Amino acid sequence: MEVISDVSSLQDRADRHRADGLRIGLVPTMGALHRGHLSLVETARARTDRVYVSIFVNPTQFNDPADLNGYPRTLESDLAACRKAGVDVVFTPTADEMYPPGCQTTVAVDELAGPLCGATRPGHFRGVTTVVSKLLSAAKPHVAVFGEKDFQQLAVIRRMARDLLMDVEIVGAPTVREPDGLAMSSRNENLDAEARAQATVVPRAIDAVQAAFRSGERNAAQLVALAEAEIAKSARAEVDYLELRDPETLRPAPPELEGETLLAVAVFMRPPGVAAGGVRLIDNCLLDPRQRAESKSESLSFRTVCQETPQ
Amino acid sequence: MEVISDVSSLQDRADRHRADGLRIGLVPTMGALHRGHLSLVETARARTDRVYVSIFVNPTQFNDPADLNGYPRTLESDLAACRKAGVDVVFTPTADEMYPPGCQTTVAVDELAGPLCGATRPGHFRGVTTVVSKLLSAAKPHVAVFGEKDFQQLAVIRRMARDLLMDVEIVGAPTVREPDGLAMSSRNENLDAEARAQATVVPRAIDAVQAAFRSGERNAAQLVALAEAEIAKSARAEVDYLELRDPETLRPAPPELEGETLLAVAVFMRPPGVAAGGVRLIDNCLLDPRQRAESKSESLSFRTVCQETPQ
Repeated sequence: MEVISDVSSLQDRADRHRADGLRIGLVPTMGALHRGHLSLVETARARTDRVYVSIFVNPTQFNDPADLNGYPRTLESDLAACRKAGVDVVFTPTADEMYPPGCQTTVAVDELAGPLCGATRPGHFRGVTTVVSKLLSAAKPHVAVFGEKDFQQLAVIRRMARDLLMDVEIVGAPTVREPDGLAMSSRNENLDAEARAQATVVPRAIDAVQAAFRSGERNAAQLVALAEAEIAKSARAEVDYLELRDPETLRPAPPELEGETLLAVAVFMRPPGVAAGGVRLIDNCLLDPRQRAESKSESLSFRTVCQETPQ
Repeated sequence: MEVISDVSSLQDRADRHRADGLRIGLVPTMGALHRGHLSLVETARARTDRVYVSIFVNPTQFNDPADLNGYPRTLESDLAACRKAGVDVVFTPTADEMYPPGCQTTVAVDELAGPLCGATRPGHFRGVTTVVSKLLSAAKPHVAVFGEKDFQQLAVIRRMARDLLMDVEIVGAPTVREPDGLAMSSRNENLDAEARAQATVVPRAIDAVQAAFRSGERNAAQLVALAEAEIAKSARAEVDYLELRDPETLRPAPPELEGETLLAVAVFMRPPGVAAGGVRLIDNCLLDPRQRAESKSESLSFRTVCQETPQ
């Protein structure tokens, strides 16, 4: 496994792989690697000949300095995990390498970046699209893989790649979950034991909505109320947003759901009696009316989904 | 010569050239090709193995719809000129090809795009950087060539390429001039005979400043006044801006010039008594204090420069 920290060496490496006819798959990460990331590596490997992982905690996508400072950094164990997973190249740039002196260029997706996480975290997606466009320029991949847990991020990056005519395939990989249903996230490490235990209200809320949807419920307010009731079972969880939206445009869903619909949730897990801060967790699922016929006899709970994911 | 109008065919063509070890040079144009463009082609040819020319009148960089509608379109003669110049690939996309349905992504350079043309033409450079990033994704060149006549555009594009870690060399090529000194521009075609004759006040203004600078004048206000006096000799010319700036940062030059300094000029050539519209012409030169010693004995007027440019 090669570890490269400067852009021009990475571009040379990519040029040589490309000249040899090898397809490159990039998995951009902010480190603190967990099984979710490793499933992205597997997805990349299945589609390409060489897997590159970038590890860079991108300062421009943090709207909250406390969140940036508290973000877990575990480079040594990340490198070990990449080695074990058979990653070919790890890219670990410094901030100066990614943001050259005098840097003043940004890449922005407009409408898709507005709601949901974009509303709570001003400038977040501009930071994401800017850094991802740089990582794509640096690693020159044929395929780049992102987790579906960050659904809006995936939609925004897909839109950016299409709009800017980038010759790269953006691939989404299914969310990987803990045995109790919690979506894997580097931020889970920042939860205390009580908050960790209560964080399961998030996947349970999604589970409840999915079950009701499969049973035929199409009223958006009813479905949202079901989710809110689940999340209210935790004294530590405060809803940031809980919304039903069009999965392509991210526009609000109609009062009676029609086509495929995104349920997107963000909660803050906060100490009791505290009004701000805490650990922010996000999750989502797609409600697909075409699956209705098979729904009643099947249990598609998160525990089942978890067993289906790699590793 | 191949004429390609869709992005994926162009990317395939570029991939094949790259796989064959051939270096690609891109000359982005809006058509209405003149000798200035052909000198860009020569610059690209001297540095690469295959020259691509794109011809696309980019709607998003026109802040004024009348300017967009009036922009000359001469595709047939442009193709003939490219063929004669030995261009290998011409890319002639439609607006839908460059801006896919639902397109909402922009690339923006901040500080450099603010003054000069950025102040007069709001959104102009955002349109330029967005379309150039698309053209670079589509043509995958090793080198892209832009005219120094559009000095700020060149500075903004260089900044974008560096900031976004694009693996492309941005090359500036010297301004090509008519025998009377007027910088070649597709917009010159829109000048009536009187305005065309009087437009020489622009290169004369630059000439006057350059001569005074070579004689040792370093006072910014004096140098600007010299240029203004030249431009005032035309009843048809109205100054849009006439400024001395740092050529790297585009920040205003100090009252007494120190290092290399950009003189940048924009004028509107307007019918007598008309307050708006007209044909907007831009020009510039670099004032380089290191050239002072040799200055007094040499005539570096635009006529001399003109004879030195290709063709």
